[in-house]
Amino acid sequence: MKRYEKNPIITSDMVKPSNPGYEVKGVFNPGAAVLGDEVILLLRVAETCVQKEGFVAVPVIRIEKGRVNAEVLEFSLSDPEVSLQDTRGISYKGTDYLSTLSHIRLARSVDGYNFEIEGEPFLFPDAPEEVFGVEDPRVTFLEGFYYINYTVVSPDGWATALARTRDFKAVEKMGIIFCPENKDVSIFPGKVNNRYHALHRPDNSIFGKPSIWYAESEDLLHWGGHRCLVRPKGDRWEDEKIGGGPPCVETPEGWLQIYHGKAEDGGYSLFGLLLDLNDPCRILKRSKEPILRPEADYEKKGFYGNCVFSNGLVEKDDGTLLIYYGASDCMTCVAETSVDEVLKML
Amino acid sequence: MKRYEKNPIITSDMVKPSNPGYEVKGVFNPGAAVLGDEVILLLRVAETCVQKEGFVAVPVIRIEKGRVNAEVLEFSLSDPEVSLQDTRGISYKGTDYLSTLSHIRLARSVDGYNFEIEGEPFLFPDAPEEVFGVEDPRVTFLEGFYYINYTVVSPDGWATALARTRDFKAVEKMGIIFCPENKDVSIFPGKVNNRYHALHRPDNSIFGKPSIWYAESEDLLHWGGHRCLVRPKGDRWEDEKIGGGPPCVETPEGWLQIYHGKAEDGGYSLFGLLLDLNDPCRILKRSKEPILRPEADYEKKGFYGNCVFSNGLVEKDDGTLLIYYGASDCMTCVAETSVDEVLKML
Repeated sequence: MKRYEKNPIITSDMVKPSNPGYEVKGVFNPGAAVLGDEVILLLRVAETCVQKEGFVAVPVIRIEKGRVNAEVLEFSLSDPEVSLQDTRGISYKGTDYLSTLSHIRLARSVDGYNFEIEGEPFLFPDAPEEVFGVEDPRVTFLEGFYYINYTVVSPDGWATALARTRDFKAVEKMGIIFCPENKDVSIFPGKVNNRYHALHRPDNSIFGKPSIWYAESEDLLHWGGHRCLVRPKGDRWEDEKIGGGPPCVETPEGWLQIYHGKAEDGGYSLFGLLLDLNDPCRILKRSKEPILRPEADYEKKGFYGNCVFSNGLVEKDDGTLLIYYGASDCMTCVAETSVDEVLKML
Repeated sequence: MKRYEKNPIITSDMVKPSNPGYEVKGVFNPGAAVLGDEVILLLRVAETCVQKEGFVAVPVIRIEKGRVNAEVLEFSLSDPEVSLQDTRGISYKGTDYLSTLSHIRLARSVDGYNFEIEGEPFLFPDAPEEVFGVEDPRVTFLEGFYYINYTVVSPDGWATALARTRDFKAVEKMGIIFCPENKDVSIFPGKVNNRYHALHRPDNSIFGKPSIWYAESEDLLHWGGHRCLVRPKGDRWEDEKIGGGPPCVETPEGWLQIYHGKAEDGGYSLFGLLLDLNDPCRILKRSKEPILRPEADYEKKGFYGNCVFSNGLVEKDDGTLLIYYGASDCMTCVAETSVDEVLKML
């Protein structure tokens, strides 16, 4: 796995805010797809508000009579009703407001390294289940459509929704496919036994640790056949939780999944998993050590340092894999490898 | 809502343990159905182990080569590796064991008040997702089958599984239909717009409070169209969380759902909700005050006092409703009312 020497390839200063009162704090965790000769990235853009002294400003999505308004809400720090919470935001008169809001932005490249970033959002929060943001898209190409699953966040919790596009211009939102609390959904890029398949990551609170689950569907909208597939190893690399990454790559040896794990020190690394082509619930191989872990300076320092996280990759015709990943929850990077090389690491 | 004067109708001493080393601690939260002239209850039976001084014994389900063994595991309290946890159990060398294990037992009655309880379990934990117990069944009659959804608990978390039977003799388990963490699933006793519908209750950890969600399905196994339908009111009765109860009753005015709410003092009460017959996502009425709250002595004192919880009811031909409910998480009770009477309380 070779990091691109000019990493990071996309940083906050390269992204135009979606609103004059907003400020881009991070651009990371991109979904990836190939459209004709182009590599498309769907970037998670996290924005906060421009702040002034004595006040705290938060981004708010208000949906009224079908109209979506992205606003700046300002509270005086001397107002006794304002209580600052952790990095997640503030509470005012019993209502929570988040300090950052994410949307999804499109970027295009001919070489896979140099991207042109669109000036406007591609997917913006505009539904009740999205008012705290849309995050971490994954793109799976199936039967002429690019299906995009992404995390939705709202006062009702976080869940996974689906959208689809044929051309990355028009896009159709299709609603929640995995109800709270569920993210890190990775839809397989092909049917097995006439069904769609996905990895998903429900949360655990009392028993167990967040693990990778399996589900199947006949229409991509209704999911069932849930079972727990891969649990955190419990070693220093996979201590707290694991979750699915980009859609699997179909290889002659099996479905290759690149997943992430959270270590005992809080760091996020990438791992490999090989699943049976005809029975994706059958685990053939799993990496013992990370295939990519935070080592570069930009992976160690940032909004959430010590973190590499991938939800997008592109396979070139020659078998090269371009693994796009978020570094430190604020920048977009890429690493180059190949299917063979990853399989050797398992 | 009139409590039966001989409540509780079923108590632990009336139930034969499923294993010579086990002891029945509670029999509560029954699902209910009508089969011919009989009322069937599916009782949640919670068992613990017979204890002896200086040791702690826990019930354990072990599945080996397809064989299910219900065992008693005994640990010496002087073993430094044993650490007692809260009422949930013990931890030994990093593994959690629960102090109680639930299974589902069948009981039959001709009058709805006096029940004969079977000597053997009807649904017993025998799958990896069930090894910490099966709980709180709900029965929905659809197209010749009694569908039973129930909570499964395992080291991977708690979720909702489905089973079905035609006669309450042979029963077929069909796997998890709502992945962790999800319980209080209430499947509608009829299709709307050619689809099955359900209320479900995903958990929330960071944002929001556990609420009643809606989902739909074409086959009862794969669910989608998730949306948050009813949130806790935040008053003294519905402060912490709410969740679905027995399957809705179809009335000329709408689908009548009896749900539960957890109050600020930790108590559980019952409430009513009326949903549009043709659009179950449309809320027509909702009770402001509980329709049943812990008042009787047996509802105030027990394993978890101050608790009434219902997941089973029976509608008689004359419109009488027999609401079966768990009192204090240890006894089974019944209250009598009618559709009209409940509707008047909304």
